[in-house]
Amino acid sequence: MERPKITLDGNEATAYVAYHVNEVIAIYPITPSSPMGEHADQWAAEGRPNIWGTVPHVVEMQSEGGASGAVHGSLQRGALTTTFTASQGLLLMIPNMYKIAGELNSTVFHVSARTLATHALSIFCDHSDVMATRGTGFALLASNSVQEAMDFALIAQAATLESRVPFLHFFDGFRISHEIQKVEQLTFDDMRAMIDDDLVRAHRERALSPDRPVIRGTAQNPDTFFQAREAANPYYLACPQIVQKAMDKFAELTGRRYHLFDYIGAPDADRVIVMMGSGAETAQETVEYLTERGEKVGVLKVRLYRPFSVEHFIQALPKTVRAIAVLDRVKEPGAAGEPLYLDVVDALEEATSKGIAQFETAPLVIGGRYGLSSKEFTPAMVKGIFDEMTKDNPKNHFTVGIKDDVTHTSIDYDPNFSTEEPSVTRAIFYGLGSDGTVSANKNSIKIIGEETENYAQGYFVYDSRKAGSLTVSHLRFGPKPIYSHYLISRANFVACHQFSFLERYDVLRVAEPGAIFLLNSPYGPDEVWDHLPRTVQRQIIDKKLRFYVIDAYKIAKEVGLGVRINTIMQTCFFSLSDIIPKDEAIKEIKNFIKKTYGKRGEEIVRMNFAAVDRALENLHEVKVPDQVTSTFDMRPPVPDEAPDFVKRVTAEMIAGRGDELPVSAFSPDGTFPTGTTQWEKRNIALEIPEWDPDTCIQCGRCVMSCPHAAIRSKVYSPDLLKDAPPTFKSTDARWRQFKGMRFTIQVSPEDCTGCGVCAHVCPA
Amino acid sequence: MERPKITLDGNEATAYVAYHVNEVIAIYPITPSSPMGEHADQWAAEGRPNIWGTVPHVVEMQSEGGASGAVHGSLQRGALTTTFTASQGLLLMIPNMYKIAGELNSTVFHVSARTLATHALSIFCDHSDVMATRGTGFALLASNSVQEAMDFALIAQAATLESRVPFLHFFDGFRISHEIQKVEQLTFDDMRAMIDDDLVRAHRERALSPDRPVIRGTAQNPDTFFQAREAANPYYLACPQIVQKAMDKFAELTGRRYHLFDYIGAPDADRVIVMMGSGAETAQETVEYLTERGEKVGVLKVRLYRPFSVEHFIQALPKTVRAIAVLDRVKEPGAAGEPLYLDVVDALEEATSKGIAQFETAPLVIGGRYGLSSKEFTPAMVKGIFDEMTKDNPKNHFTVGIKDDVTHTSIDYDPNFSTEEPSVTRAIFYGLGSDGTVSANKNSIKIIGEETENYAQGYFVYDSRKAGSLTVSHLRFGPKPIYSHYLISRANFVACHQFSFLERYDVLRVAEPGAIFLLNSPYGPDEVWDHLPRTVQRQIIDKKLRFYVIDAYKIAKEVGLGVRINTIMQTCFFSLSDIIPKDEAIKEIKNFIKKTYGKRGEEIVRMNFAAVDRALENLHEVKVPDQVTSTFDMRPPVPDEAPDFVKRVTAEMIAGRGDELPVSAFSPDGTFPTGTTQWEKRNIALEIPEWDPDTCIQCGRCVMSCPHAAIRSKVYSPDLLKDAPPTFKSTDARWRQFKGMRFTIQVSPEDCTGCGVCAHVCPA
Ligand code: SF4
Ligand code: SF4
Ligand code: SF4
Ligand code: SF4
Repeated sequence: MERPKITLDGNEATAYVAYHVNEVIAIYPITPSSPMGEHADQWAAEGRPNIWGTVPHVVEMQSEGGASGAVHGSLQRGALTTTFTASQGLLLMIPNMYKIAGELNSTVFHVSARTLATHALSIFCDHSDVMATRGTGFALLASNSVQEAMDFALIAQAATLESRVPFLHFFDGFRISHEIQKVEQLTFDDMRAMIDDDLVRAHRERALSPDRPVIRGTAQNPDTFFQAREAANPYYLACPQIVQKAMDKFAELTGRRYHLFDYIGAPDADRVIVMMGSGAETAQETVEYLTERGEKVGVLKVRLYRPFSVEHFIQALPKTVRAIAVLDRVKEPGAAGEPLYLDVVDALEEATSKGIAQFETAPLVIGGRYGLSSKEFTPAMVKGIFDEMTKDNPKNHFTVGIKDDVTHTSIDYDPNFSTEEPSVTRAIFYGLGSDGTVSANKNSIKIIGEETENYAQGYFVYDSRKAGSLTVSHLRFGPKPIYSHYLISRANFVACHQFSFLERYDVLRVAEPGAIFLLNSPYGPDEVWDHLPRTVQRQIIDKKLRFYVIDAYKIAKEVGLGVRINTIMQTCFFSLSDIIPKDEAIKEIKNFIKKTYGKRGEEIVRMNFAAVDRALENLHEVKVPDQVTSTFDMRPPVPDEAPDFVKRVTAEMIAGRGDELPVSAFSPDGTFPTGTTQWEKRNIALEIPEWDPDTCIQCGRCVMSCPHAAIRSKVYSPDLLKDAPPTFKSTDARWRQFKGMRFTIQVSPEDCTGCGVCAHVCPA
Repeated sequence: MERPKITLDGNEATAYVAYHVNEVIAIYPITPSSPMGEHADQWAAEGRPNIWGTVPHVVEMQSEGGASGAVHGSLQRGALTTTFTASQGLLLMIPNMYKIAGELNSTVFHVSARTLATHALSIFCDHSDVMATRGTGFALLASNSVQEAMDFALIAQAATLESRVPFLHFFDGFRISHEIQKVEQLTFDDMRAMIDDDLVRAHRERALSPDRPVIRGTAQNPDTFFQAREAANPYYLACPQIVQKAMDKFAELTGRRYHLFDYIGAPDADRVIVMMGSGAETAQETVEYLTERGEKVGVLKVRLYRPFSVEHFIQALPKTVRAIAVLDRVKEPGAAGEPLYLDVVDALEEATSKGIAQFETAPLVIGGRYGLSSKEFTPAMVKGIFDEMTKDNPKNHFTVGIKDDVTHTSIDYDPNFSTEEPSVTRAIFYGLGSDGTVSANKNSIKIIGEETENYAQGYFVYDSRKAGSLTVSHLRFGPKPIYSHYLISRANFVACHQFSFLERYDVLRVAEPGAIFLLNSPYGPDEVWDHLPRTVQRQIIDKKLRFYVIDAYKIAKEVGLGVRINTIMQTCFFSLSDIIPKDEAIKEIKNFIKKTYGKRGEEIVRMNFAAVDRALENLHEVKVPDQVTSTFDMRPPVPDEAPDFVKRVTAEMIAGRGDELPVSAFSPDGTFPTGTTQWEKRNIALEIPEWDPDTCIQCGRCVMSCPHAAIRSKVYSPDLLKDAPPTFKSTDARWRQFKGMRFTIQVSPEDCTGCGVCAHVCPA
């Protein structure tokens, strides 16, 4: 059967299934899971029916504790019920999870795994939240990609109904929840085929009902509790087989075949990595690259982490393995080892005791931590781990991806190792939060993903330190499925949508030799060179970049789009990259313009069409000189007079080199000095408010309302004005109690983001 | 230095230390930890100072979530802060615990470990709550006895201040929290010696303060979070040594020497049990018994479970060990193994890899579950585990203490195996919740514990199924420390304070041959025999019991004490047992009467003195016939017409044989049939309310207020009275709308507990 190919992110992929196979959805928003709840809420508001033709009841509770309580209650009334959460939200569900599992309720919780707040909060990904629930009795099922998020959402639902064990289906927050991929969409028929209506009926019949009264949730005493607790054993013993059965049925339907543990790599591998989550696909990509080159390596993807089936695990491993590295995306300080590592050590030990381990030699097991709080996990690190495993005494309890100069846990790797396929277009776009770059890129992915045979992937990095700031879009397009769940470090297309970034960010660091460099520049092809910092000039020359400029802001203004340059830059991208023949691409862009802006009126559509046409006319290649000629260079991230900590740590983070800071740069308890933001001058405002002393009524609203505290007012003695520069504005203070004083409102141009809030609130 | 010997329970022992070494105590009550908070609250209300001379600030929050938040905030202001909790309460603290640990705050949470609610709620003990926090970064320190609860509360406080790792100090709920033991009381000097004031100052200096501003609790991004998270490693690595240092210092002060892992048993043991909690002392008692008889067995007590020191663990094990059984008091369904088991498997594996394991042969490790929800854990079970370990293929993931006829996890043991010392007085008292038996026994323990060289232990079993019901007191007295944290199964003294129990409970099952049997009987020594059920007669004859009777209710009434028989029965106990010379015992009882009742006035004291004297005069030995002569026997727990489930399951629980119900007796999800209490007729009311149709105004208050729904009112047609027995009371219905109808209020004597609430609310 032909299924639609769509591009969407992991949250939507999951919500799509969860919504259509449930009747009650209790939600409470927490990043990065919120879009799942938002989608469900919107679909219900639109009256979309589930596969049984009823519209699910979506209810937002007052906290995740409430959401899990609502789920519990709803399940006990026999409704198919789900929820979405992450991180601390999941922690608040723990008490109910023990009860939901203890009572063998069929349900699936969908979790976009997120770091728990410890020394600091983080909205990014690791498995610390999921691991905190591993004692609850929930089954834990990990999906590693957007496609799997959709597939496993359905497999989990099928398995929970048959096994009666509740499931927690999780995927990596942001990396999968917000990564856009082209996937094959499951149909209602698929869902109906996977969900057995007899099991749904059985679920309903277990409901508490005055018609068939039973008691649940009683209190038990020492005489009986233990026995009753063991009475659920058969359900947990049967669960792995039931999940495999659901996976097998799913494979028949869709052709996508999954196992409790999926091994990929050399059949005679001597080194195997065991892990779960999106990093396993990065490991797969690396394994495929290395095995093609003759290395005996492999990766074992753990799909069903709980109930953990020792037998299935052992069977999935090649008999030749001599060293196993177990990677955990969690740190449990004080534990003898991280959770998955401990399970693997035990599985091997038990297999040996039981005589089911057919290994040629007993494998050595080491454990490592990676990817905490979405720390990048790359093929280079995977290679580093395989290299470590060849040593006589490989490090145990290692870390990878950081430099630990304190307790020396980190292992080395060659950051230049790369498995990027030449056939893949890897494009990076530097934009401002407000300039439409990200949404234009999402459109580009849809165009390429849905209109061509290409696979497409988009991932968007927002600088969360200050609003309205840098966005970096990472787009991959290629003929094969994309397993690279890591940032692009070698781009063959780099677009910089803001000229001012050149002085502040090393935008060309990721450009590979021969790449295309597209710059939105107020300077034309003949003058731009002299306005580039020395470092940028050097990179363009050394890497032999093909360099193009366009004055997108000028065009946008001319066609009436104000500062919205997204259509223009998108047109340039399609024009320069040859993923789609130019004419076809232009047609598709215009189609999308109609779709996107159609309801806002003909005029908007017309302006955007004009922007497309003008972009093509005004895109110019720059003839690159063979000499660095610039008299200035990139600005240091903080001024020289900044305090030591700011220069050592903050400045590196500002410059985008925070990843290279070693462990010793940080206090062990999350303590930071105060007032460091004063050294972080962003200069991102395109327009800065101007104070008019004559009309100002001195109400102070602008000062109060600036979200960045970038406006200050002062009342002061006129004496102080004697050394003021002639451009310094001031006026008489109007408040009665400040008679004879002067008044000034001053904007800090370097801190202002140009958001316009102050102007909006000003009554004058 | 001579320290006071006191008798108290684990909650008070812990609270005593926690209160005196803290400044802020945030509480929220949850069984069985509530008394810790109540003690602290009371002491603060009384103005008791801590060791620095200030009165701790005790604040009750709105939930355990709030309590942990208050602790976090208070710590960040530099105050020494603690809290007490258990079970679901601890789960609600998890989010804050991650943060408290992440920020390396010095604090100790004291936890009376309690079962988490799953298929059913349980207020009893296991380690599921503590284990649910093992990923938080808290250190976990287990104390196994009342003495250790006091000692480790102090050791934990010393260690947290030095290590900066927060501690969770736990002990078994009810078994230790409510067990009364004679212990050596730590002094303020001990506390001052253990708590380093420089470390307290350092704790204060880490406080958030406007005078030395720093930021904590920031948000971190992928670039830096991972490194910062690893920056705490040195603190966790140092923690075990710091705990050992505190233990060593403590040993110097008190002579009680503890280690991170304490091994007890044969130096050349081939079988070792690894465990923590009160059960470890039961294992110790069994190990000592078995090694005296030549068995090569041992027990390793895990004190510091987190951070888990592989090195210390391995060093503590005898090199000769061939089999290790790891006992977990928790069940995590779906896990490859329970938590401590997984750690031990890993420790052995890592020790082998590192070459620090000096074992003669690699030991086999098996894991088992015991004691869920305070299921008894006895020397017989310990012996059963050691026996299992001698087998060729000992069971892994076994259960002990139950009969698992579903998934066959349980191992066998001989329930008759006992290690009870002949030198120990083992006394069991059956009383009613309201008859003062428990408090009299607590006094007896104090008398014996504090006035003699004997060690003393008291444990009290309340039937929590219905209020005002059976209490069973288990008291041990002996010349050596008492490690028996399990119920007495072979008593040499059995007292039954309620004659009616004989027909319902098998009170003499626990009597060992030759034991004393004291019965509160309305029948004198000459007539009592004929009023005993056949089973009781048979037991008295077969076990050659020394049988005494006293009519305690008669005496109590005569001396003016109403139904309070506690002083009388206590006097008989001291008179019959020869723990203390009779005269001395009487003196002490009278001293206690003065202490206890002194403030209620001379008259009460005088009446109790009279009760003592009269008790001695009216205690009679019964000449036991050599034939069973009775014409009746014990009543079946439920009538024959009860439904199958009630006869099969409920009846066994009512009869006190719930422990023998196999796993198959229970539904796997906690479901029970409704309405089973109607079959549980307790007959425990000594007095039953009598309805007076003439004065009754028919207001219905008695019906509404009865806590056991044991009164019902009915309005009905007079026709229905024609077949009523002549004693059936009725009157005209007084309500206007029931003109011509009759009205009856009927008490169900078998369900009434005699609480008197109905009489209290009756306006007539
Ligand atoms: S535009 Fe106004 S409100 Fe916005 S950041 Fe700048 S000064 Fe502040
Ligand atoms: S909001 Fe406008 S009128 Fe008010 S102080 Fe600011 S500039 Fe002046
Ligand atoms: S005394 Fe009255 S209120 Fe108490 S149980 Fe008996 S009938 Fe109910
Ligand atoms: S409370 Fe007293 S007056 Fe009221 S209905 Fe009961 S017996 Fe009658």
